[in-house]
Amino acid sequence: MGQPTVADVGELGLLARLQSFCDQSLIGDDAAVIPGCNGERSQVITTDVLVDGVHFSDRTTSAMDVGWRAIAANLSDLAAMGASPIGVTVGLSLPGHVSVAWVEGLYEGMYTCLSRYGGTILGGDICRATQTAVAITALGQVSPDQVIRRDRAQPGQAIVATGYHGASRAGLELLLHPEVAHPLSTAQQQMIQAHQRPLPRLDVVEHLQKLVNADFANVAGMDSSDGLANAVLHLCQASGVGAKLVRPHLPIPTALTAWVGDATALDWCLYGGEDFELVLCLPAAIATRLLAHLGQPAAIIGTISPEPGVALVESPTTDAGTALTWDSCFQHF
Amino acid sequence: MGQPTVADVGELGLLARLQSFCDQSLIGDDAAVIPGCNGERSQVITTDVLVDGVHFSDRTTSAMDVGWRAIAANLSDLAAMGASPIGVTVGLSLPGHVSVAWVEGLYEGMYTCLSRYGGTILGGDICRATQTAVAITALGQVSPDQVIRRDRAQPGQAIVATGYHGASRAGLELLLHPEVAHPLSTAQQQMIQAHQRPLPRLDVVEHLQKLVNADFANVAGMDSSDGLANAVLHLCQASGVGAKLVRPHLPIPTALTAWVGDATALDWCLYGGEDFELVLCLPAAIATRLLAHLGQPAAIIGTISPEPGVALVESPTTDAGTALTWDSCFQHF
Repeated sequence: MGQPTVADVGELGLLARLQSFCDQSLIGDDAAVIPGCNGERSQVITTDVLVDGVHFSDRTTSAMDVGWRAIAANLSDLAAMGASPIGVTVGLSLPGHVSVAWVEGLYEGMYTCLSRYGGTILGGDICRATQTAVAITALGQVSPDQVIRRDRAQPGQAIVATGYHGASRAGLELLLHPEVAHPLSTAQQQMIQAHQRPLPRLDVVEHLQKLVNADFANVAGMDSSDGLANAVLHLCQASGVGAKLVRPHLPIPTALTAWVGDATALDWCLYGGEDFELVLCLPAAIATRLLAHLGQPAAIIGTISPEPGVALVESPTTDAGTALTWDSCFQHF
Repeated sequence: MGQPTVADVGELGLLARLQSFCDQSLIGDDAAVIPGCNGERSQVITTDVLVDGVHFSDRTTSAMDVGWRAIAANLSDLAAMGASPIGVTVGLSLPGHVSVAWVEGLYEGMYTCLSRYGGTILGGDICRATQTAVAITALGQVSPDQVIRRDRAQPGQAIVATGYHGASRAGLELLLHPEVAHPLSTAQQQMIQAHQRPLPRLDVVEHLQKLVNADFANVAGMDSSDGLANAVLHLCQASGVGAKLVRPHLPIPTALTAWVGDATALDWCLYGGEDFELVLCLPAAIATRLLAHLGQPAAIIGTISPEPGVALVESPTTDAGTALTWDSCFQHF
């Protein structure tokens, strides 16, 4: 008995209860947008926490990779809002037994990722703790008319996934169980790379801005950090619409299907998470032009439909399919 | 043997090694200042991590107090930069067994403090962990000509402490050892309040702006979150100057000295930390006008001197005194 715990209500239950304390006008996207004065660029701010044993471990992720991933995850949230990075702050919890070399590796990984995408380390705080945790807050900027939001998905829009899904989960599997594939194929090495060094899709944002200019009222999007299914469900829920995803159009690496089979590959594609691609809802003509620029594996994976519910179908002309639900998505606790 | 650990090099040693990865033009103050476009207000950003068992515990701090303190600590950093708050993000690490009521209390405490001083919760992230930790990033704004920095202390300036020092440390003692004082005097209840509900001195900033207007080139300052001695040492180091602090002028609560004696009261005043007052270096005339507004316990505690070294003396006319050094200051790890 006793009071309900965080584990009892789960992550989504907890977030629902905390909403009333938050700024309702600013939450609900991958990051908060703070308007600038006089039509200046808006500020975008987002936070991610990575915890040892949950998001990384010495078995799978070097200190430099942890640093890279921590930054990439936050820059991906900025990209999901259409923003470009200014910099980050780093809140670091550390046990005293951690080696100085590990912390330097962490910072070098963060620095390397920021140098590639723009942005600097603006400051932070370091505190003694029993478990290593890295809390990153990223600050970005975006023109007010180029903000990408979740609640603008409209029936008829094409749903674009900007790259492979399932690759990061596959890479984690290979790192946790090195005995399953020895020697690694090139494709498997790429899966490990996808897990250790994900690339936030700021390049997609830059190109989309050229295609769409200031007309972002017809664009919805978020990143797929919590899984492709999670992203589509969020976009549909925020917009009050549904979606039809075409299974054969999902960007699953061929080598992944060949390795683990159709069912597991599909599961990892939809629910694996941490691919840090963008999931965009776009007018069909824009989607086609974006794909022409991005090339494979970016793909139109389905369409937005007026009625609620996300269905996975076998072809664009099929109506009957499997319903995707929140139940299958990953939750902390 | 093996590699040096974080505990081996200590907090200051670790920070020194990480500096090269950070934006050198932005670090070294209580928060980073990011210039706005076209003379617009600058953004100010700062992060603090609070860890269960280090910064708070169920023995001394309710969930609401943890939330209040977490926000107050960050708003104090904004105040130290001369900035006013926009909002915060919250990175929360939580074990599954934590009660939902505790998390709601935490958010209520954060919300209450933000409501009093301005600013909202802009978003955040929640993650499973083995230890509760709260990483807050605060975003603020300031006119570019009203930024308060550490490196502008100049010989002859008066050093102002805006309120009592040692009170928070005393409050912690009373909470950890309730048997030492029963029943609590009013003064002791205020010490507990100072520990559980510190007040960031945004009011001082507001008044200082009226007194100084845009001439902040002659103002140096930081907050005393890590102790009064730590603040004076930082200000002197950043400015390449020294300081003479006059022991009888230090704002120690009379009831504290009466309770624990001169030596302990002085120790807690200089090194206790978490009083979250401002330590300002000001032209004498401005300091006097500020004190006339603030009233006691705010005080001129000493003067900036040209030669390096911070000395604690018995009267303004004495030269010989005790040297204050970094060795006595609190370090994590």
